[in-house]
Amino acid sequence: MPKVETFDKSLVIEQVTDVFHDKGFNATSMQDIVDATGLNRSSIYNSFENKHNLFLECLIAYQDKNRNRLSERVLKAGSSIEAINMIFKIYLEEITKHENDKGCLIVNCASEMANHNEVITRFLQNNKDEMIKLFEDLVQDGQVNGLINKRKSANEYGLYLYSSLLGFRMTGILISDRTALESITKTITQTLT
Amino acid sequence: MPKVETFDKSLVIEQVTDVFHDKGFNATSMQDIVDATGLNRSSIYNSFENKHNLFLECLIAYQDKNRNRLSERVLKAGSSIEAINMIFKIYLEEITKHENDKGCLIVNCASEMANHNEVITRFLQNNKDEMIKLFEDLVQDGQVNGLINKRKSANEYGLYLYSSLLGFRMTGILISDRTALESITKTITQTLT
Repeated sequence: MPKVETFDKSLVIEQVTDVFHDKGFNATSMQDIVDATGLNRSSIYNSFENKHNLFLECLIAYQDKNRNRLSERVLKAGSSIEAINMIFKIYLEEITKHENDKGCLIVNCASEMANHNEVITRFLQNNKDEMIKLFEDLVQDGQVNGLINKRKSANEYGLYLYSSLLGFRMTGILISDRTALESITKTITQTLT
Repeated sequence: MPKVETFDKSLVIEQVTDVFHDKGFNATSMQDIVDATGLNRSSIYNSFENKHNLFLECLIAYQDKNRNRLSERVLKAGSSIEAINMIFKIYLEEITKHENDKGCLIVNCASEMANHNEVITRFLQNNKDEMIKLFEDLVQDGQVNGLINKRKSANEYGLYLYSSLLGFRMTGILISDRTALESITKTITQTLT
């Protein structure tokens, strides 16, 4: 009977996500993955087939975690404008948590791999559509309730907020000063009111 | 006498920049650089020492090109608000020029390498400071001339425009629709007036 190695898949995904997040997809070697997980190469290949598939699983887990974190706090917000502010606040907290911020795994992935790999590009496109839709729905709600101005349509503001969030998350790689970061988020969101 | 190989350094930098821009730093192998330039490895090592140094030279050349392109058109703009709009327009043109946009070499580099390598991080920090200063000076001028509102200080708007430009450039990797991109730039810059 072949030796069957069992492992905690979600723990492995978490360990490998940290490596990908720190080094990026291309700079992560199979040896890095072996070192981070303690698994041998054949177990990794048997379970995930290749580095791309393993990376995609990490992206999906990271997206799920982000999605849960966002929706949980967005639901608690008293109004749609508070919910939008909350989204930027969550990213602000993420940026200021570590001294040498490495950015967002998904944004970094877009910069490193979009338009190179079809499956990854599809993941990134879906993630983008989901974020725009989230902002669009919040803006629409805010416009109905008179909390957000109607100078732009909900779709236009959705696009703007998505682009602004990407920029804010990227800026956090090079700026760690909380006052500067808070100022940026305020200017972004005050456009809506 | 040892054989001396001469080559057009600026052409080599241009050829290698294209490869780094397409694949990113980590995915670019020495063989890719040999293939792109037609030089042999020893010439490359003799001239640039290592891949990091060669990459840094590419970043500097790319920054110079961008800087010249920006300042040339900014100088021609009739007012500071037109100059700010022009900067976003230049990036819009860059994004829509190729079907599968690969982003900006410098922004991609920030996402791939910032806080990993000291020399590269210093380059990125200086580039960021220069961009913020450019925006800040334009905003200050616009505020003096009554073209830009004073709801925020020139420094706050400078930070906001820098962050917005990063986001816009990243968004261009996943959105190629000109109408959507134009809408984003309009919302960003209308905040100022």
